[in-house]
Amino acid sequence: MRKVLAEIITIGDEILYGQITDTNTQHISAELDKVGIKTIRKSSVGDDESEILAILKEAEQRADIILITGGLGPTKDDITKKTLCRYFNTELKLNEVALAEVTEFFRIRNRELTEINKQQAFLPENCKMISNKMGTAPGMWFERNGKVFISMPGVPFEMKEMVRNYVLENLQKHFKTPFIYHKIIKTIGIGESFLAERIAQWEDNLPENMKLAYLPSISEVKLRLTVFGEEKEEIERSAAKQIDQLLPLIKNYVFGYDEDEFEKVIGDILLKNNKKISFAESCTGGLLSYSVTKIPGASRYFQGAIIAYDNEVKVNQLGVNPATLNEYGAVSEQTVKEMAKGVRTKLNTNIGIATSGIAGPSGGTPEKPVGTIWIAYDDGERVITRKLQLSWSREVNVRWTTLAALNMIRTTLENIEV
Amino acid sequence: MRKVLAEIITIGDEILYGQITDTNTQHISAELDKVGIKTIRKSSVGDDESEILAILKEAEQRADIILITGGLGPTKDDITKKTLCRYFNTELKLNEVALAEVTEFFRIRNRELTEINKQQAFLPENCKMISNKMGTAPGMWFERNGKVFISMPGVPFEMKEMVRNYVLENLQKHFKTPFIYHKIIKTIGIGESFLAERIAQWEDNLPENMKLAYLPSISEVKLRLTVFGEEKEEIERSAAKQIDQLLPLIKNYVFGYDEDEFEKVIGDILLKNNKKISFAESCTGGLLSYSVTKIPGASRYFQGAIIAYDNEVKVNQLGVNPATLNEYGAVSEQTVKEMAKGVRTKLNTNIGIATSGIAGPSGGTPEKPVGTIWIAYDDGERVITRKLQLSWSREVNVRWTTLAALNMIRTTLENIEV
Repeated sequence: MRKVLAEIITIGDEILYGQITDTNTQHISAELDKVGIKTIRKSSVGDDESEILAILKEAEQRADIILITGGLGPTKDDITKKTLCRYFNTELKLNEVALAEVTEFFRIRNRELTEINKQQAFLPENCKMISNKMGTAPGMWFERNGKVFISMPGVPFEMKEMVRNYVLENLQKHFKTPFIYHKIIKTIGIGESFLAERIAQWEDNLPENMKLAYLPSISEVKLRLTVFGEEKEEIERSAAKQIDQLLPLIKNYVFGYDEDEFEKVIGDILLKNNKKISFAESCTGGLLSYSVTKIPGASRYFQGAIIAYDNEVKVNQLGVNPATLNEYGAVSEQTVKEMAKGVRTKLNTNIGIATSGIAGPSGGTPEKPVGTIWIAYDDGERVITRKLQLSWSREVNVRWTTLAALNMIRTTLENIEV
Repeated sequence: MRKVLAEIITIGDEILYGQITDTNTQHISAELDKVGIKTIRKSSVGDDESEILAILKEAEQRADIILITGGLGPTKDDITKKTLCRYFNTELKLNEVALAEVTEFFRIRNRELTEINKQQAFLPENCKMISNKMGTAPGMWFERNGKVFISMPGVPFEMKEMVRNYVLENLQKHFKTPFIYHKIIKTIGIGESFLAERIAQWEDNLPENMKLAYLPSISEVKLRLTVFGEEKEEIERSAAKQIDQLLPLIKNYVFGYDEDEFEKVIGDILLKNNKKISFAESCTGGLLSYSVTKIPGASRYFQGAIIAYDNEVKVNQLGVNPATLNEYGAVSEQTVKEMAKGVRTKLNTNIGIATSGIAGPSGGTPEKPVGTIWIAYDDGERVITRKLQLSWSREVNVRWTTLAALNMIRTTLENIEV
């Protein structure tokens, strides 16, 4: 069967002038890839009618699917909708469903529907509307000569919602895409090259119809096993067999699969063990708490935290001994131990975790260079500490520390050797 | 004078499949923009000869400058150099300078020059070599019929060094470039459409050589004024004149310009007013603290925070009266007021800010639906509260609340009416 081909077009002067990073094309192409649609080209053009018309015509010649983001806002520089009318030789017409949705969007927010927002309910006559659950500009689905054109807002979270809940499903229905099965195995605490070494032999012996990809991000490495074939159950069975052979090689690092989110997995472990947790954060500055509370329902295991940025807070709120700070400094094993114990007793939880370090870019000394970070875990019986020596940016150092701290919950409660 | 036009082409399957975010095109276009070269299109194609040849031919017809990154590595899937030979109908030839440079690159690092790396010194006969000071693949400069083609490695730091130290200077010499001036005005607390309505008349009266764009994100809207012309000072003067007329229309919402970061602006306001701050976070769960501590040097004005996720923490650590919680609930004006005062006195700061709300997706009631959020600001003299009724995802609701809370610091300390 011939592959279904897609092109992605992003529209916006802000992209052409380099004022924003376009992450939309990456997201869309990765999602298309998962359902077996091949992206053959990505293009960005400005908010310029003739440029948009030209790229649409070119893309229509090459691809089966043309996905467009951007230029749907209510302001004058957003001309995508008008240009699509021109391209399809049609006109804008009030779409009653779109009007109802944008009216409701404003009603819920107790805000008045302005004339300019009402314009968003006008859509090209020949399109199907795609609901925008996160904003006011609807998406549009066009068909012509067997090809599909999809226009979506440039705001990433609006676009992502449409891709997830409408676009992928309808593209799969419209084009009968071949069967592809993906299984993602998620690891934490091991670098990509070490992981690759451990599983090299297994990877070399994978059958012809399977492909492995490494998707590294901060501290996490995802392995994506892709299997191509005709028959769903057969494919899933052979994938499961391969994964059974893979797991013993890396089991201490695997925290989940597919959509599993690390912070959610940690929450589930706490729930399962019936433990409540609290944090004493210095260098992570709130990210540890925020990472945990991003998960709905975190209140079942997360009690709260003390962000002890200043040493005064470490002493007065966490009960760290001033002598400890004097003798060893804020970034030390002794201090994080007292912080972890302090927050655990103060907030009355089973487990307390503390972080203290030099996130950068400045503040280092020869003995404690930038990137020196201490973490402590205290559950009343066990006190475990870990020292990190990181060398990324401030932001990445803090994110790395956060994941390492959460991973201590997993390794300790699950009795995993590291 | 006619504008000099550029196209940027990135080559690589990993970009098409969405496995990496392409940041090269943003960097290159931003740099070109600064020297008055207009990027008219960006494209990404895979490591595929016919695709590369096709896009080169198209780009040559549209632009004066064609910048290419990627596909210069020593491995099999990197075919850019070979394809450029084909495109220019020429052949690879050993470049002695390139050979000396790659040999030196390996010598310095005490590594042996392999046969595969030696291949990197072979370049198309018709190009000028661009030295790669950060890696082993040289860049290439081609000229044909008055147009310039530049091929650079895809590794960002190698490409950036070439752009900075060779490409820009030589393009400015080759084309005599016109002048472009951008000014970004950053607003917070007003939606894109309301902003557009307020400044519609001003926008309509902008001179021919000026263009306005709206760049919205969560809670922030950036206005970008672009001015084209011949004479730098004249352009900057006329832009300043327009901005002087714009500001009175929106002044309460403008927090900064160009590279200004909101969290940094808030920090600077606190420093200027010599105020220390602390937070009592419930629904924001740490994001408020994290947003502030992302800025290096935040310890000069941020003392710490108490993340009071559980009511027990609100009572025991912040001193909220249990009767208040009983009578009004955790999500209420009364409770956030007590939280803000509690953290301010407990952590001994000038200002205390508190958040409490229902971030979603569940937990709402008819009286307090999901998205009901209270914020309080307390500086000992003034106590200011704000109620938000939001309706995005949990993540966006929390981010919006965080920005609204930080904005209260700005509006209060700067005496801004909202």
